[in-house]
Amino acid sequence: MEQTIAAIYKNPTAFYNQKVRLSGWVRNHRAGKQVGFIELVDGSYPESLQLVYSADRGEAFRDVSLGAAVAVSGHLVATPEAKQAFELRLTELDLVGGTAEDYPLQKKRHSFEYLRTIAHLRPRANTFQSVFRLRSLMSFAVHRYFHEKGFLQVHTPVLTASDAEGAGEMFQVTALDLDRLAGQPPAALDYKDDFFGGPAHLAVSGQLNAEAFAHAFKNVYSFGPTFRAENSNTARHAAEFWMIEPECAFCDLDGLIDLAEDFIRAMIQTAFEEAPQDIQFFNDFIDDGLIQRLEAVQAAGFSSMTYTEAIDLLEKSGQSFAYPVSWGLDLQTEHERFLTDEVVKGPVFVTDYPEDIKAFYMRGNDDQKTVAAVDLLVPGIGEIIGGSQREERFDLLAQRLAAKGMSTEAYQWYLDLRRYGGTPHAGFGVGFERLLMYLSGMKNIRDVIPFPRVPKQINF
Amino acid sequence: MEQTIAAIYKNPTAFYNQKVRLSGWVRNHRAGKQVGFIELVDGSYPESLQLVYSADRGEAFRDVSLGAAVAVSGHLVATPEAKQAFELRLTELDLVGGTAEDYPLQKKRHSFEYLRTIAHLRPRANTFQSVFRLRSLMSFAVHRYFHEKGFLQVHTPVLTASDAEGAGEMFQVTALDLDRLAGQPPAALDYKDDFFGGPAHLAVSGQLNAEAFAHAFKNVYSFGPTFRAENSNTARHAAEFWMIEPECAFCDLDGLIDLAEDFIRAMIQTAFEEAPQDIQFFNDFIDDGLIQRLEAVQAAGFSSMTYTEAIDLLEKSGQSFAYPVSWGLDLQTEHERFLTDEVVKGPVFVTDYPEDIKAFYMRGNDDQKTVAAVDLLVPGIGEIIGGSQREERFDLLAQRLAAKGMSTEAYQWYLDLRRYGGTPHAGFGVGFERLLMYLSGMKNIRDVIPFPRVPKQINF
Repeated sequence: MEQTIAAIYKNPTAFYNQKVRLSGWVRNHRAGKQVGFIELVDGSYPESLQLVYSADRGEAFRDVSLGAAVAVSGHLVATPEAKQAFELRLTELDLVGGTAEDYPLQKKRHSFEYLRTIAHLRPRANTFQSVFRLRSLMSFAVHRYFHEKGFLQVHTPVLTASDAEGAGEMFQVTALDLDRLAGQPPAALDYKDDFFGGPAHLAVSGQLNAEAFAHAFKNVYSFGPTFRAENSNTARHAAEFWMIEPECAFCDLDGLIDLAEDFIRAMIQTAFEEAPQDIQFFNDFIDDGLIQRLEAVQAAGFSSMTYTEAIDLLEKSGQSFAYPVSWGLDLQTEHERFLTDEVVKGPVFVTDYPEDIKAFYMRGNDDQKTVAAVDLLVPGIGEIIGGSQREERFDLLAQRLAAKGMSTEAYQWYLDLRRYGGTPHAGFGVGFERLLMYLSGMKNIRDVIPFPRVPKQINF
Repeated sequence: MEQTIAAIYKNPTAFYNQKVRLSGWVRNHRAGKQVGFIELVDGSYPESLQLVYSADRGEAFRDVSLGAAVAVSGHLVATPEAKQAFELRLTELDLVGGTAEDYPLQKKRHSFEYLRTIAHLRPRANTFQSVFRLRSLMSFAVHRYFHEKGFLQVHTPVLTASDAEGAGEMFQVTALDLDRLAGQPPAALDYKDDFFGGPAHLAVSGQLNAEAFAHAFKNVYSFGPTFRAENSNTARHAAEFWMIEPECAFCDLDGLIDLAEDFIRAMIQTAFEEAPQDIQFFNDFIDDGLIQRLEAVQAAGFSSMTYTEAIDLLEKSGQSFAYPVSWGLDLQTEHERFLTDEVVKGPVFVTDYPEDIKAFYMRGNDDQKTVAAVDLLVPGIGEIIGGSQREERFDLLAQRLAAKGMSTEAYQWYLDLRRYGGTPHAGFGVGFERLLMYLSGMKNIRDVIPFPRVPKQINF
């Protein structure tokens, strides 16, 4: 049976003096006069395995190039005096696939900017091995967390007839032939001919659909791709990203905040317990304050303040900001970062935002000015979670829709949830990539997405 | 602490004579002269919990309507002589949310067709409670299966510049204003102005991207929404569905077939072990041959035949088919169903299809006529898995691209995977909804998707 490098690192003594078969790729190769050394990687572990062969094996061994795919076997031997604790003494080596001479991942440091231009090869680079292992682990951890808590997963639709959910610009989806449309009279644009018989868009959230399911299964969540057609070229925005959205019936804002804190803590714990080597890698090479920061979060509590208190703190801070600070204006990233990085020095929930800057579905507070919204801000990132208690009172929700100029007809089904066994309910959204950036210290969202989609970039 | 109905059913004796708090919805209510009975559901379990109260509790209890949301508490009492083994004797009942009189889910059987028109409420109906609990469980089971096998999950992009991956019609995605486009001269359609600076589509598969990751992590899988703009109104097709796509480096067709069989067996086992009541429900009310059929699959092996053998069997069957049978033509659903339902009477792998009817990336066999493709056919459904070994030989892949009139420039990155440490590799795709139909006996794909999208249907 083939082994993985992870299995060997996890329990090397079980393999000592055993014959071991492996396959993977050559990370480094030094062919000396007496002895050759190959560093083998197979994606399972942050460290490579050292393969050793004697020079009399000849060219079949000596000519193996950097990046080549090989299948090998040999005996694993403890080497207590060497840098590595063990090495594999090769008896067989099959060249499965060589590399052309222009292989871009030569043995040197490449910038993240350059590696983005070879997104099909960058998962082989050290940093991206750790990034995408962490991404896979955390994706599983999200599902496991909610599954163990009895949440039902609901696959909310990506395609939606709605064009205004208040969460950002939307992409349009069509099966019409645009080449034929241009040049036709305006009346030629008839959505009755389109696939769905009307305009269709890519959903910016699965929340409204998840609310319907929360009223049948109480606690539900969705986790899937989400889309924004916002032309913003920042390190925190992508046109396509994954979002985690739990939604709980019979739940108010306090219950939601408890869930959000528990969720973030569980994710940090998973990263520490199940990817310790990758987290250490990020701490060593990406962000040397990472482990200390995450450990501090686990040791202390999450702070909490109202939006009104946050504005007060910002106004009194003496700090000069690029964007204005005033009650009624939304917090910008610089404000969020100041609150979490400088004031609280840790995660902080900001609650009860002005109604006018929040979406129509958020529950009105008794002060008639604010809504039961909550954002979680974390150091180095800013907003990582946004949520709210939802307006469950039919009349108030209908008023909000009307006040925002939205069609009550289009939202009839959503209003129905308030007419038939409605409950106080609440939910939040976590940007999965922001969570990964928080857990890894990676600074650009493009570097935690396998094939990022941003303005003017849709390669691969 | 609040309990769930599932927790009580799983270990009722732990709750006997204890005070229990619950919340959920009223499935049925009989207010007698002496005693009232409420059937409570909370989405966690296929059975309801019987709540009992004495009539002197008055209107607050008696007036609770079907579908209402309630929070209750009382003592759980064993009732060995009654139909139910236990009941909750109510001491408190809070009406959280009532139901308007026109509540559509009254106590009678509704057709699946009707329930599709109220997709926001149907998850409260018995059948859809079981369907969506199974969907959630199986989604988790997919992730757990691959996680435990060491597969890395990769989130392949939904947005793609490719418009021809050979798996079906694609939706176009745009941020252009189509209302302004119609009526302009043809030159007005300039994709340089569009979000990505070129045409964009919704991916029909994540395979090509997954191949890149398989060459960094060996065994990977994707599991996400997939799109087809095919105007086919069948019980097996939807415009948006979820697909599971494992991709393995250092793997040939035989290895892939082993994985596919192991995967299907593991999914059946999970359904039996972790959703026995839901599977029993499907057997009782949806498909009375379900359990027998799935048990037979677990007991026997999966069969295998080549496409050439399949054509031979079909030609000699004496069966009359609507579509012609001839070597070189693709198998239609009626042919697949005949092979799996009638000939094999169980799951069957069909391998080695003619090159001309399969996608460009499938590996050519030595006979120069067929490719190393495999479909898994199962009774009642037809094709549930489609996969292949991929063409890893650079020259042959480039030839196939050219022969199909595809741009080698657009696929340069994909060709690169054959130039830099390439390996024999293979992968398959499983339609998640078809898997659910197979495990539940549900006959229409619209009834296993929370909010189905099909031609002219994009409500909710």
